[in-house]
Amino acid sequence: MKALVYRGPGMKEWTDVPMPTIQKPTDAIVKIVKTTICGTDLHILKGDVPTCESGRILGHEGVGIIEEVGSGVQNFKRGDKVLISCITSCGKCENCKKGLYAHCEDGGWILGHTIDGTQAEYVRIPYADTSLHPVPPTVDEEAMVMLSDILPTGFEIGVLNGRVKPGDTIAIIGAGPVGLSALLTSQFYSPSEIIMVDLDDNRLQVSEKLGATKLINSSDGKAIEKIMEITGGKGVDVAIEAVGIPATFDICQEIVKPGGTIANVGVHGKSVELHIEKLWIQNITLTTGLVSTNSTPMLLKAVAAKKIEPLQLVTHRFHINDILEAYNVFENAAKEQAIKVIISNE
Amino acid sequence: MKALVYRGPGMKEWTDVPMPTIQKPTDAIVKIVKTTICGTDLHILKGDVPTCESGRILGHEGVGIIEEVGSGVQNFKRGDKVLISCITSCGKCENCKKGLYAHCEDGGWILGHTIDGTQAEYVRIPYADTSLHPVPPTVDEEAMVMLSDILPTGFEIGVLNGRVKPGDTIAIIGAGPVGLSALLTSQFYSPSEIIMVDLDDNRLQVSEKLGATKLINSSDGKAIEKIMEITGGKGVDVAIEAVGIPATFDICQEIVKPGGTIANVGVHGKSVELHIEKLWIQNITLTTGLVSTNSTPMLLKAVAAKKIEPLQLVTHRFHINDILEAYNVFENAAKEQAIKVIISNE
Amino acid sequence: MKALVYRGPGMKEWTDVPMPTIQKPTDAIVKIVKTTICGTDLHILKGDVPTCESGRILGHEGVGIIEEVGSGVQNFKRGDKVLISCITSCGKCENCKKGLYAHCEDGGWILGHTIDGTQAEYVRIPYADTSLHPVPPTVDEEAMVMLSDILPTGFEIGVLNGRVKPGDTIAIIGAGPVGLSALLTSQFYSPSEIIMVDLDDNRLQVSEKLGATKLINSSDGKAIEKIMEITGGKGVDVAIEAVGIPATFDICQEIVKPGGTIANVGVHGKSVELHIEKLWIQNITLTTGLVSTNSTPMLLKAVAAKKIEPLQLVTHRFHINDILEAYNVFENAAKEQAIKVIISNE
Amino acid sequence: MKALVYRGPGMKEWTDVPMPTIQKPTDAIVKIVKTTICGTDLHILKGDVPTCESGRILGHEGVGIIEEVGSGVQNFKRGDKVLISCITSCGKCENCKKGLYAHCEDGGWILGHTIDGTQAEYVRIPYADTSLHPVPPTVDEEAMVMLSDILPTGFEIGVLNGRVKPGDTIAIIGAGPVGLSALLTSQFYSPSEIIMVDLDDNRLQVSEKLGATKLINSSDGKAIEKIMEITGGKGVDVAIEAVGIPATFDICQEIVKPGGTIANVGVHGKSVELHIEKLWIQNITLTTGLVSTNSTPMLLKAVAAKKIEPLQLVTHRFHINDILEAYNVFENAAKEQAIKVIISNE
Repeated sequence: MKALVYRGPGMKEWTDVPMPTIQKPTDAIVKIVKTTICGTDLHILKGDVPTCESGRILGHEGVGIIEEVGSGVQNFKRGDKVLISCITSCGKCENCKKGLYAHCEDGGWILGHTIDGTQAEYVRIPYADTSLHPVPPTVDEEAMVMLSDILPTGFEIGVLNGRVKPGDTIAIIGAGPVGLSALLTSQFYSPSEIIMVDLDDNRLQVSEKLGATKLINSSDGKAIEKIMEITGGKGVDVAIEAVGIPATFDICQEIVKPGGTIANVGVHGKSVELHIEKLWIQNITLTTGLVSTNSTPMLLKAVAAKKIEPLQLVTHRFHINDILEAYNVFENAAKEQAIKVIISNE
Repeated sequence: MKALVYRGPGMKEWTDVPMPTIQKPTDAIVKIVKTTICGTDLHILKGDVPTCESGRILGHEGVGIIEEVGSGVQNFKRGDKVLISCITSCGKCENCKKGLYAHCEDGGWILGHTIDGTQAEYVRIPYADTSLHPVPPTVDEEAMVMLSDILPTGFEIGVLNGRVKPGDTIAIIGAGPVGLSALLTSQFYSPSEIIMVDLDDNRLQVSEKLGATKLINSSDGKAIEKIMEITGGKGVDVAIEAVGIPATFDICQEIVKPGGTIANVGVHGKSVELHIEKLWIQNITLTTGLVSTNSTPMLLKAVAAKKIEPLQLVTHRFHINDILEAYNVFENAAKEQAIKVIISNE
Repeated sequence: MKALVYRGPGMKEWTDVPMPTIQKPTDAIVKIVKTTICGTDLHILKGDVPTCESGRILGHEGVGIIEEVGSGVQNFKRGDKVLISCITSCGKCENCKKGLYAHCEDGGWILGHTIDGTQAEYVRIPYADTSLHPVPPTVDEEAMVMLSDILPTGFEIGVLNGRVKPGDTIAIIGAGPVGLSALLTSQFYSPSEIIMVDLDDNRLQVSEKLGATKLINSSDGKAIEKIMEITGGKGVDVAIEAVGIPATFDICQEIVKPGGTIANVGVHGKSVELHIEKLWIQNITLTTGLVSTNSTPMLLKAVAAKKIEPLQLVTHRFHINDILEAYNVFENAAKEQAIKVIISNE
Repeated sequence: MKALVYRGPGMKEWTDVPMPTIQKPTDAIVKIVKTTICGTDLHILKGDVPTCESGRILGHEGVGIIEEVGSGVQNFKRGDKVLISCITSCGKCENCKKGLYAHCEDGGWILGHTIDGTQAEYVRIPYADTSLHPVPPTVDEEAMVMLSDILPTGFEIGVLNGRVKPGDTIAIIGAGPVGLSALLTSQFYSPSEIIMVDLDDNRLQVSEKLGATKLINSSDGKAIEKIMEITGGKGVDVAIEAVGIPATFDICQEIVKPGGTIANVGVHGKSVELHIEKLWIQNITLTTGLVSTNSTPMLLKAVAAKKIEPLQLVTHRFHINDILEAYNVFENAAKEQAIKVIISNE
């Protein structure tokens, strides 16, 4: 079969590889129908993720059809349409039993990282019963692909960790795919004001369509002043960091009100300076996290009930044979006005 | 009357001052029976708290007898014995209605800070109905003084923010009065293991008497290794920072397990380096805060029911006329093996 | 001034009474601008509420203008526009400090019950600082009147007690003013399916406009079967009882799924048979309650931000001089297709 | 092998049966070391549980040694000492993923009910990875047997559902094995007052040893008056029903204070009259439930750390060959002063 193989920093190849096979009774082999590219894939290609070795098939998102299941798989059979979770969960370890699948002792984020991933014609999914979700026939497949990673990430790590409540004033710093996912899913809890901050006017316009009530282009370095003005000097109830650099983290710690929450969603490469000499007295909560995807079944229901429409995040579509071109577009997201690119194997 | 007056950095005086008087209908005048000195008072004397001006009577803890109440006070009358909360709460503003008395719009920590405090023969207490608590006759007065600040602080900002649960493994960094209060009150939730870390062997021995299950003297710089060894490499469920310097904050961020909590109780003068490049993926929660003293009524019941015995924190006793000597002992706490000093106006 | 006075079971009078006056420093006198009639007022008139004595001015809802404040009132002054909460809260007692204003030791539901109420030109409001809310100038006055009682009741006792979550399937039994308030406010939490049950087709049609996704006219006695069918035999996550009779309570206990919640909002006059021989094993939660109105500030923000539009509940409008006619319409709500009637004193 | 077989209402037999065998890859065969008898076994024998058919081996509690595992079992191997949970959990269904193992779609309470149980020399345990717990070598085996059912039941369905908090006043109605388990585990949360109610003075004396602060023998029908007197007329924060008859349920609904919780643990055979005409206004919460045993790992840690000592519940010991005699004693628990009987297969 064909797959997108990582060849070390800066190098990738669309090439022939052996078909995956069942290795354990709990495995399933899934034929990919649609997949996509994540910002994390770009990080790997930059060499930022040393735990991902050369030769690895990338990708941790997708929708597919079950090709084969191991003898221990109960919930799925050949021919079932499934959503692949970016997180593999054994369902049996201490962390899985607590719902902390992100830190599954034999799983977590391994797909397209420490085992081969979804940017291929077929993929092997360990612990299929607890790592795949049935896809309702009526739901759009492309919308489903958004549920593999970015929607549960924005929801669990941004909105739920941030404890967004009805009536809240929230700010989301970063209008990339995950920031926009936090924007979409924050509306499950009906905040009164959603302030979106980004450097890119196009993404801010998209934010407005998706429900943001205030837009701030932070290129002028005045995001903090503007947010404090919007909030009458009080600050926000919840600040969601969806970029992953010190400058955006700083905005969050300046704008959160006493009793409020900073929910960090961004993947950081460097430490940040925490102004605990000011924050110690402010009764704030700061959260971090990798998604556990516990919310995926709920998100599936909400998408099926049209409570959110993640299809709005899809800007470009490619056949899987053109995946290198898809990478090219996604790597130049600002210029290409790209948010999520769908890669189809049909 | 006599009072301990702050005269600017490094200077204090036990001197004659005018008696306080009712200024608003919601005020009460309280005759002090017992008071104490807080680490914060020492910070003020070092000049670390510029919002506290010269001429201010210090002190925000104490038990006393109501001398006089304003016309709007309902819950108390002359002669009642009361516990003074370190936090003044109007009970009417947005934050008070949410239970966030620490950030009361007309109160918060003002006693011995922006208005005159309790290290005096008499003190004026604003919003008496919502800032004083009735003292049950059977409960020890000295134990009660521990409830003005350190016990609710250790409990609300350490234990409750840290979400200590039955069976948890927790570490408390710092065995000063507030760290020991966290130690005492953490036992309300029956953690399986309480690791106490300090530089002072005497305080560690006290910790053991108060319920710590493991003691670590961190002078050798090996606290992190030792805690990871105790926890089988997993780290702790809850790390309570009760010192307020970068080194102790660092210990906390190294020892917290995925899904765990760092509850910062320490008063910090400097920013800290937050290793978010490691923590972003760890699903941790970091909390900060000034006490709101919502838990004081519960703590009163628990002390009355002998569920905790805060009297164990009292190491020295002085008459109020000897308050300068009490300061001298408390400023040399390690040498004097002092934890809390009781100052009596009887 | 004129007021609607209860004269014992079955009797009421629109008549001249003395103006209310400040009795305690914490009182305010409010000139009524708009008020309304509650189902509870009809209960009183039927003689169902013996604690309400003859001679009492009825009414516990309304918007008005501050006419005069006592010396202890801080948050309001003459001329301020205010929303009157149906619940009086002293802000100082044990229950108020816990946020349980419904059971305030010197308040709770007293307006138009044990003290004179709002169906009058003027009303005295005790503990004004903690029992009135400022009304933003931009918000519709009639919408505000819905916030005195029915919206916080539907929200706190139905939606919050019921712990409605995104993606949930919920059923609301009873499409009267409070059931419809639960319907409106449940949408703060984005349930996927809201099943509305009533005997009146007009109210079901209103429900559909307000966001119900399934309508069931229960006149045929088949509500339970229909709900089980809609839910694929699983039952609902949350059943909200908003009628107050055994038959509707029964529906709730038959349709709740294992792990689900029955939130009772209805005012019951008789005991019910609880099928604990079936429910003991079902891990269900049943809640009851009188509203505390803690959510009113949030609801005010949500109405101001157009997140909900309670004005849709207003079907009829009368001048206060025609209040007896308003009662007549409201007493024949089904025939008159009345939900809430606005009574204006302008 | 030998096993205790149910032969229809009133009949049981200690007899030879075939050895259990692995039926699915996720099964394990466990050699029983210690088991016990539950009140539910007596209910089955009375014919109260029609879903349990003649021919069934009874018993759902025990500690044993793994004899054999299926090919899909990962967490255990032959020779491991294990605690058997009374609840079988597949770990893969919607309810298991939510932690509601009690309602596992392919498990729940099936052992000794719809599949053969633990009162035998060997037992087959389905879904071994998620239904067994490793037993630490240092922990007493008999204490462990208490963790199969009664301790997690008292804790999860009594204490956790009841939301027992530090400082609370709680009442436990019924001092049988589950009521005493609630008593033991309630102390994880440090209530100030634990009122124990029973008809049997011996059990009340045991309660006192286990931590009850007030004892009420309810034979005189005055339990309600006495509890109201103890609580100064306020009622209790939490009432735990641990009997399962209308009379004890009634006590609970009379003694719970506004804002409080009734946690029903008792297994009821009849409906009860719920006084919702009084409770609707009281802001109370009523919970029911079958244990999910999510708390078992925590309870294991707490027992290992000596935070609770469930061995105190064991009153009698028998060899498994004398199991009929053990039943005889347990069926006459009051007369025999029996709480839990240990049955040993060694």
